[in-house]
Amino acid sequence: MRIAELAKLLDATVIEFAEGNEEITHASAIEDGDAGAISFIGNPHYEHFLGSTQASAVIVGEQLTTPNFGDRKPPVLVRVKRPYEAFARALEIFKPAKTLIAKGIHPSAVVAESAQLDPTVNVGVNAYISDRVRIGANSNVLPGAQIGADTIIGKNCVIHANAVIYDHVEIGDCVVIGPGSVIGYDGFGYVPIGDGRYRKIPQVGNVIIEDDVEIGANTTIDRATIAETRIKKGSKLDNLIQIGHNVEIGENTVIAAQTGISGSTKIGRQNVIAGQVGFTGHITTTDNVIVGAQSGVSKSVTKAGTYFGYPAKNHREALKLEGALRSLPELIERVRQLEEKLKEQA
Amino acid sequence: MRIAELAKLLDATVIEFAEGNEEITHASAIEDGDAGAISFIGNPHYEHFLGSTQASAVIVGEQLTTPNFGDRKPPVLVRVKRPYEAFARALEIFKPAKTLIAKGIHPSAVVAESAQLDPTVNVGVNAYISDRVRIGANSNVLPGAQIGADTIIGKNCVIHANAVIYDHVEIGDCVVIGPGSVIGYDGFGYVPIGDGRYRKIPQVGNVIIEDDVEIGANTTIDRATIAETRIKKGSKLDNLIQIGHNVEIGENTVIAAQTGISGSTKIGRQNVIAGQVGFTGHITTTDNVIVGAQSGVSKSVTKAGTYFGYPAKNHREALKLEGALRSLPELIERVRQLEEKLKEQA
Amino acid sequence: MRIAELAKLLDATVIEFAEGNEEITHASAIEDGDAGAISFIGNPHYEHFLGSTQASAVIVGEQLTTPNFGDRKPPVLVRVKRPYEAFARALEIFKPAKTLIAKGIHPSAVVAESAQLDPTVNVGVNAYISDRVRIGANSNVLPGAQIGADTIIGKNCVIHANAVIYDHVEIGDCVVIGPGSVIGYDGFGYVPIGDGRYRKIPQVGNVIIEDDVEIGANTTIDRATIAETRIKKGSKLDNLIQIGHNVEIGENTVIAAQTGISGSTKIGRQNVIAGQVGFTGHITTTDNVIVGAQSGVSKSVTKAGTYFGYPAKNHREALKLEGALRSLPELIERVRQLEEKLKEQA
Repeated sequence: MRIAELAKLLDATVIEFAEGNEEITHASAIEDGDAGAISFIGNPHYEHFLGSTQASAVIVGEQLTTPNFGDRKPPVLVRVKRPYEAFARALEIFKPAKTLIAKGIHPSAVVAESAQLDPTVNVGVNAYISDRVRIGANSNVLPGAQIGADTIIGKNCVIHANAVIYDHVEIGDCVVIGPGSVIGYDGFGYVPIGDGRYRKIPQVGNVIIEDDVEIGANTTIDRATIAETRIKKGSKLDNLIQIGHNVEIGENTVIAAQTGISGSTKIGRQNVIAGQVGFTGHITTTDNVIVGAQSGVSKSVTKAGTYFGYPAKNHREALKLEGALRSLPELIERVRQLEEKLKEQA
Repeated sequence: MRIAELAKLLDATVIEFAEGNEEITHASAIEDGDAGAISFIGNPHYEHFLGSTQASAVIVGEQLTTPNFGDRKPPVLVRVKRPYEAFARALEIFKPAKTLIAKGIHPSAVVAESAQLDPTVNVGVNAYISDRVRIGANSNVLPGAQIGADTIIGKNCVIHANAVIYDHVEIGDCVVIGPGSVIGYDGFGYVPIGDGRYRKIPQVGNVIIEDDVEIGANTTIDRATIAETRIKKGSKLDNLIQIGHNVEIGENTVIAAQTGISGSTKIGRQNVIAGQVGFTGHITTTDNVIVGAQSGVSKSVTKAGTYFGYPAKNHREALKLEGALRSLPELIERVRQLEEKLKEQA
Repeated sequence: MRIAELAKLLDATVIEFAEGNEEITHASAIEDGDAGAISFIGNPHYEHFLGSTQASAVIVGEQLTTPNFGDRKPPVLVRVKRPYEAFARALEIFKPAKTLIAKGIHPSAVVAESAQLDPTVNVGVNAYISDRVRIGANSNVLPGAQIGADTIIGKNCVIHANAVIYDHVEIGDCVVIGPGSVIGYDGFGYVPIGDGRYRKIPQVGNVIIEDDVEIGANTTIDRATIAETRIKKGSKLDNLIQIGHNVEIGENTVIAAQTGISGSTKIGRQNVIAGQVGFTGHITTTDNVIVGAQSGVSKSVTKAGTYFGYPAKNHREALKLEGALRSLPELIERVRQLEEKLKEQA
């Protein structure tokens, strides 16, 4: 693609050093840039790469001072308001087509007669669509995925390879379910029956996944015992996450890998939850909560802000405690000296 | 189902407010109850819902005082000894049939000629049953599940979609293996071979899963190096759990999601282990041990009781330490004041 | 196999108590040894089993003092330089053939016409090999595995059941990808677009897995945003591990189950990382670093050594802190006494 055309697509305000119609063929990191590449600098920390990059073009912010390139031929500078966002769009432009996506319904796929698939739906090798499933326009079911009976999948969805979606799950539009993820399997509920043994509590609720939700690989989202487990609009979940039965995840909440959320907990809107965090069951977080990696959240969080630690505390309190803890060996020594002095006095 | 018939199935001792033969069509939470629903109250904390629920019937304990419903038509009260257990039974009665379960052997499934399946066994779409596998009566192998050679599966088992069971695994009766779980893959064992490289130690033991064990989704249970990895009768494991080689889990032990148990560790009977707990290898826990979420158990636990923390400590000790830790910033201030006073004295 | 032949294969220096050509049929643990078994003692701690084992032969070190067996018939003692390594070789000799491995290409497998498979490659039941995939000699793709377009797999590899490898992944020789693992799925990258919503950053890099790497079950290794995610030669990864986009794992590094490594972090050579460890993104570890279980590594580690804790600290510092923490309740009491004494003085 010609640089002029690309710059237009990226809403560039200024282009510097363009000699003519340089050809851009791919996007790359600033340190890996080579001929044909467009790269970006989103952080002053990386500006020093400008002097040495081999990329043909670099997306930069509007404030960046044009450096002195001396003798060498400078890269084309494409100035935009938000460099990272523009670069993400460049990646989108140059990304290869998704593979593992078939055209049409592969002959090895098994689709129940009672299933209703829009004619534009693609179903991959050895995928299985069970009874009365409905799938909307332009959705893709990749190889080896299994879709249980009565499940509804909206438009523009991708159900990735070997994902399993059980029955009666409701999935909105533009949803991505990652490979190997399991949606709507039974929640973990047992009742003791007196002699040490447990009886399973049937899990008869369902899972609702709203529009624009994206879920990573090998993540598990359990069916509700009764009522529903719900992942609200725009939320993004990473890999290997556990979502217990009857959990609710608020709109536009982001959860990193290996985090677990126990049954009936409700996470607010616009939360950002790092990796390997654990949430006790039956608690809530309010909107705009940030939780640091490996934290253990054991109580409801009612104020927006940043929390971390085990158990999780308000950012400031947690930092103070961490500092206090670091100084503990020194404190022990100070107390020893005090004891000595008092002894001397006695 | 008529309320009278249902109450009998739930071993109700008393029915109040039944006008005639009210029809119950489903089970639901007390706050979501609507016409036709049977709900329950297992906890005084929820009794206030009785006044407003729209459920047609509510399971309650024998001690609950009948509230004054004033003008409104009260729900039928079904009194039982253990409300939660009765409600679980109601859920069982109204649950929909499992989907993804085929009738018979689906034509797309591959079953080795030497495999011996009871005629009542169902095998789903694209499942694979390898050589000399034996499967007992009324067991179901769901779509995409893979069963390795010489594995034995008992009666009334469900092997869920895309689960993988390797060879020579022994599975008892009434066992559930969740979707995407991997049973009997090689344990993680390597021996350094001098130049920084590692050689794999062949894992030639097997996995034995006893009767009534239920395992969640995307959980991994490794084959023993030699001898066996064993999950004993009645144990329940949640999702995304890692069970290392040669581990033994005692009878009726319950383990929540994302917990990991390292090689050769033996967990006792009737343990209750919360989520994201880690166990070092080669340790044991005795019977009736409870371990809190995210704990790190690095030593054998020889006394029944509750433990938590990193490293895990006895409940009382852990709470004391947590309290002490919370007061640490204040303690630092107190020591500073002591130092000042002593200075003034000097 | 005759003991003399086996001893030769194990590079034994001495054989004691061999009566003639004892037949060895299997390998087992010293405490489970029975007639026909060869076992081993690699640790003085287990020497006491020598007096009672029923194993026909035991691999021991060269320094072990031959015990007095009294009246009973002693096992054959096979003396070697490194008992554990020799035992691993014995396990190799007696291990059963891998199951789930087909011979040739199973008729239910789907192999794209443009894929280039060496004639010795085996492809299992319902596996799928997409467009332009290349696979080298003696590699095996097990049932239900999915291989994306343009992916290259070397010689002597095993891609286990229901594993998913996305497109453009490069896999070396002698690599093992465990069952249910997902290689090359999109990294977790989103850019906020102003109104609380997020837009996905296309992940257009790839994953490179070098020779002799072994990866466990249900592990996820994300594709790079741009450039590559790389697992270097000889590294071994356990089950349920998360490797973020653009991560690099150094040569011969070992990582235990449920550990997570965030995006762009680079782990050095010969690291040993225990289970449930978390690494922040964009940090590095140098070579020969050991990290204890459940640690949280939030800063780069620039010195070889052992680290643990949350946040992870140098072994010595972490132990000191742990000791100080344990003595905290006692310290509080000591400060209380000091305060009292000073009050009395006043």
